[in-house]
Amino acid sequence: MYTGGYTGKILRVNLTDKIAKEEELPFDVAKDFIGGAGFGIKYLFDELRAGTDPLGPENKLIFSTGPFCGTSVPCASRIAVTGKSPLTNAVGMALSGGYFPPEIKFAGYDVLIIEGKAEKPTYLWIKDGTVHFRNASTVWGMKTTDCQQVIKNELNDQNVRIACIGPAGENLSKIACIINEMRAAGRKGLGAVMGSKNLKAIAVRGTGSVAVTSEERLKIAKGNFGKAMKESPVLYSAFSKLGTPMVVDALCALGIFPAKNFSATGEFAPVEQIGVEAQNTRNVGREHCYGCPVGCSQLRLARTGPYAGILTEGPEFETMYSFGGETGVDNIDSIIAADRLADELGLDTISAGVAIGFAMELFEKGILSSADTGGLDLHFGNHEAMVTLLRLMAYREGIGGLLSDGVKAAAQKIGKGAERYAMHVKGLELPGYDVRGAKAHGLNYATSYTGADHNRGYAFQEIFGIPIPYAVDRFAVEGKGKLTKWNQDVRMATCDCPTMCAFLLDMAVPAIATQNTADLMEAATGLTYTPEEVQKVGERINNLARAFNVREGFTRADDTLPERLLTEPLKEGASKGNFISKDDLKQMLDEYYTARNWDLNTGSPTREKLKELGLEYVAD
Amino acid sequence: MYTGGYTGKILRVNLTDKIAKEEELPFDVAKDFIGGAGFGIKYLFDELRAGTDPLGPENKLIFSTGPFCGTSVPCASRIAVTGKSPLTNAVGMALSGGYFPPEIKFAGYDVLIIEGKAEKPTYLWIKDGTVHFRNASTVWGMKTTDCQQVIKNELNDQNVRIACIGPAGENLSKIACIINEMRAAGRKGLGAVMGSKNLKAIAVRGTGSVAVTSEERLKIAKGNFGKAMKESPVLYSAFSKLGTPMVVDALCALGIFPAKNFSATGEFAPVEQIGVEAQNTRNVGREHCYGCPVGCSQLRLARTGPYAGILTEGPEFETMYSFGGETGVDNIDSIIAADRLADELGLDTISAGVAIGFAMELFEKGILSSADTGGLDLHFGNHEAMVTLLRLMAYREGIGGLLSDGVKAAAQKIGKGAERYAMHVKGLELPGYDVRGAKAHGLNYATSYTGADHNRGYAFQEIFGIPIPYAVDRFAVEGKGKLTKWNQDVRMATCDCPTMCAFLLDMAVPAIATQNTADLMEAATGLTYTPEEVQKVGERINNLARAFNVREGFTRADDTLPERLLTEPLKEGASKGNFISKDDLKQMLDEYYTARNWDLNTGSPTREKLKELGLEYVAD
Repeated sequence: MYTGGYTGKILRVNLTDKIAKEEELPFDVAKDFIGGAGFGIKYLFDELRAGTDPLGPENKLIFSTGPFCGTSVPCASRIAVTGKSPLTNAVGMALSGGYFPPEIKFAGYDVLIIEGKAEKPTYLWIKDGTVHFRNASTVWGMKTTDCQQVIKNELNDQNVRIACIGPAGENLSKIACIINEMRAAGRKGLGAVMGSKNLKAIAVRGTGSVAVTSEERLKIAKGNFGKAMKESPVLYSAFSKLGTPMVVDALCALGIFPAKNFSATGEFAPVEQIGVEAQNTRNVGREHCYGCPVGCSQLRLARTGPYAGILTEGPEFETMYSFGGETGVDNIDSIIAADRLADELGLDTISAGVAIGFAMELFEKGILSSADTGGLDLHFGNHEAMVTLLRLMAYREGIGGLLSDGVKAAAQKIGKGAERYAMHVKGLELPGYDVRGAKAHGLNYATSYTGADHNRGYAFQEIFGIPIPYAVDRFAVEGKGKLTKWNQDVRMATCDCPTMCAFLLDMAVPAIATQNTADLMEAATGLTYTPEEVQKVGERINNLARAFNVREGFTRADDTLPERLLTEPLKEGASKGNFISKDDLKQMLDEYYTARNWDLNTGSPTREKLKELGLEYVAD
Repeated sequence: MYTGGYTGKILRVNLTDKIAKEEELPFDVAKDFIGGAGFGIKYLFDELRAGTDPLGPENKLIFSTGPFCGTSVPCASRIAVTGKSPLTNAVGMALSGGYFPPEIKFAGYDVLIIEGKAEKPTYLWIKDGTVHFRNASTVWGMKTTDCQQVIKNELNDQNVRIACIGPAGENLSKIACIINEMRAAGRKGLGAVMGSKNLKAIAVRGTGSVAVTSEERLKIAKGNFGKAMKESPVLYSAFSKLGTPMVVDALCALGIFPAKNFSATGEFAPVEQIGVEAQNTRNVGREHCYGCPVGCSQLRLARTGPYAGILTEGPEFETMYSFGGETGVDNIDSIIAADRLADELGLDTISAGVAIGFAMELFEKGILSSADTGGLDLHFGNHEAMVTLLRLMAYREGIGGLLSDGVKAAAQKIGKGAERYAMHVKGLELPGYDVRGAKAHGLNYATSYTGADHNRGYAFQEIFGIPIPYAVDRFAVEGKGKLTKWNQDVRMATCDCPTMCAFLLDMAVPAIATQNTADLMEAATGLTYTPEEVQKVGERINNLARAFNVREGFTRADDTLPERLLTEPLKEGASKGNFISKDDLKQMLDEYYTARNWDLNTGSPTREKLKELGLEYVAD
């Protein structure tokens, strides 16, 4: 049996029956899936039937920590939230950091599986192994920060850590997120899943600690890991001080900072208004996740106009893009305000921003009229309209009701050719990279089991020029299938499963990522892997997630990109003239499926591959 | 020497020199001034020179707890904040409840005296007797809720309790308050004093406890007290569920709910829109101060329009008035939103609302034009303009810069007869009672050492018809001088000094107030008083406060009311036809001064009276 790292316990909570029970975490699951997204996808596949309504009581919401969460391993105290996504109908998985994740371990659990639907608004109060189903009538309707504070007061314990939804999740917005502290498990509408269960919040307090198998071995492993972090040319020198939004400048320089719903990338590059230098004028401090020596999360305070005095933790790069370039807004204070408001309302900032940019382009093209928008002037760059739209989306008022389910659904309702301007893959709105100038990144969007998701296979080789596992030309097509498989499998195995911060992979340890995970796993849990076996865990889970989606009816045809990216070359900037043609995509997909040993026609994993990965039962 | 109740220690903090030192709390001070406002006024009088600039480093800010604060005595864990008011140039004293006050006792102190001025934005971190001067650059500029959370995170202790200022205090608005949790030491601009010292916050954590002299005696005293509370016809049955704003209905019925800057009292009585029934549609829960079984503080959530999802703790009655009747606004959600925003910005809700109502009347009268307001439509009832004005006041932008120092200063700058519409006494804006229908209440406004301050001598006899010490006719003039003396002295002695909740005096224990304080004092501190001696403490401190003001140049001429209340009878409602004529005021003042043994010409305490109260040194 394994020891250390894991608590060895799953807490299964049925909201319909108000029953909570503990189950043992099976050895095989721990060994073959490591933790985090691995556990989430494993249980989601095993326990959901095909065609489950994502907003019905049969969907599940799985909160799974990693084996180092709550230990002294830095940058590892994150949590994966997994459920069937109401936005994509595919696997929905999103991660968050902060202080909520380790508290679950301290309370005695590796995994929470939430089932059913509470009769009335409820929050869970998990205190060291006891579970209370509490009336959430006081906090229902509250924004996320207030909700957390009021629950702490109600429980008379300021040390409680809470994950909750805002009004958006309550109103079943399909782009609603889950917030803990000021951090988000942001994407794929998992906040709506929580809302559909009448579950406002999960409050946790644990006084236990997490043991490891060998403190001595762990010290050595952490030493190697820490050394790699220190040797990173950017981690402490830049990233710690600037956080993710430092990428705005880099992407503007590469000509791939998306602008105006991807219609003006390279033309609108507001680096002076919202780039690093402008960001620094709003920086007031930093926050750290539990056990993180980097502290990349910047506290920024808006300074001007109606936004003065609004604080946010962020905006992260993706939000700078979604509320900035994507919408044509270059007022940094409005972006700060929109970031905070989205967190308070519980809206995913990426999807919300893309929905706004989408509506703006439709307005400019005359597909949406002033009558449709309730008089809102939705020209690109109107930051006041942007902020207003967030509220309308969270409360499903007016045009907000249309956008609240994401651009794919909105485009279908609007008709009139709107789909052409809906920037999504499988229903998930595009993150902040115009992949016409970063083709592996584009292939990842097309193939990720979650839809257009930069985090499931981030092509740092193309974005930062890091030559690991090998150097690539970002405009090239050849080799990108294999690279994307590597990116997806390594990221799954070294970040999403051990719930380690993905920024480390990108910036500090890409060369030693699988070795690092193997070393830490042995020290913390006693489970031994070769680096190749670690990567194999990633492949296993990516196959299992793919199998889930195949079971839901997804095929090769769904592995695509928005028409615009496949047909319109970039008109300006350092990536001018580039796009991913349909032939490019076909070639990359063929290479990708071949590398994965997936069927070239259907995009389904072959029985042979599943068997190799110990997933025969999936093929059956 | 005394024992119990008190920690026996004063912490004196000099921000200029970054020095903190402990002093012994003298026996005589404890005995003669009890605590709270008594301590604050004692040290303010003794340590300030006449003519001290309220916003200069020579002003002091004194946080003083009471002898039951942090003990098991219910409703007693409040704190008085005292300084020379920048709004009135008189004694500024305001009280707050919540959890910050007892934390100071737990950390080992009865009183904090803050002196000097920090070179750079600073916050104090007081941990069990150790004092740290910390750089506040991260939290400077933040709203009050964010400020508190960020400091907790920075100190890595979620149990820290914090009092802080918002942007209004930083920008030296003379109507800025001090906020702890979501509670305010609201009035007289003490937030600006804190801001003038570059002191953003005081963070406190104490792990000690507060001993009492006799647990046995205390149990008996608390029993009697608790019995009186239970026997109250309103305390648990209504007040606990509705909080102070239940008074809206009562005052509308009495025809004294002030409306449209006191121009339309009795005509505009929005009881349906913002009275108890309407309030109940927004109630979601309650908060309790430390050790309070009542929990009158209502959590209310705005539901409609741009205000949806905004939570506030309140609005208390005074805020229902100031952002409601006073401004002609009857949109309850906008009042909730304005209440929260004022707390976040650190603006006193009463003064801010009266300043807005004042500006609205000037706008309607044509004294302020659209050019003066930067295009803001300031007609009575414009709730959006009201919310905007709060921000402009806190940041001193446009018309907000004018209003940010209160209506007296604004009227002087505007000229054109604006003073007639400036509803203040001694510079302090009027609370929510149109005293034309409650004359003792009016006399208290005229004579309170803090200016128009309902809390320094609340005439519950007139408002609630409680016949203690005797029944009165609210429209009568005779007897109101003596009554006001009683109200002021008893309130000082039984609420403001022992820092006990004033609502108890009004609603539960008026008949036994001084006996109750005597019993609790003996049990908790070992100091013995007769009920008459308790009341004498109140008289002593009211004389000392008056002496402070006399030293600053205040005379009988300052004991007055706004011209409108002295000349315009109420036109509608249950108090129709009533006003306080100049003769009425003269008669009441004569009776009041006589009852106090103060000089009838100057309004100064006589040497004889001061000597009787043990304040010879003051006369000298």
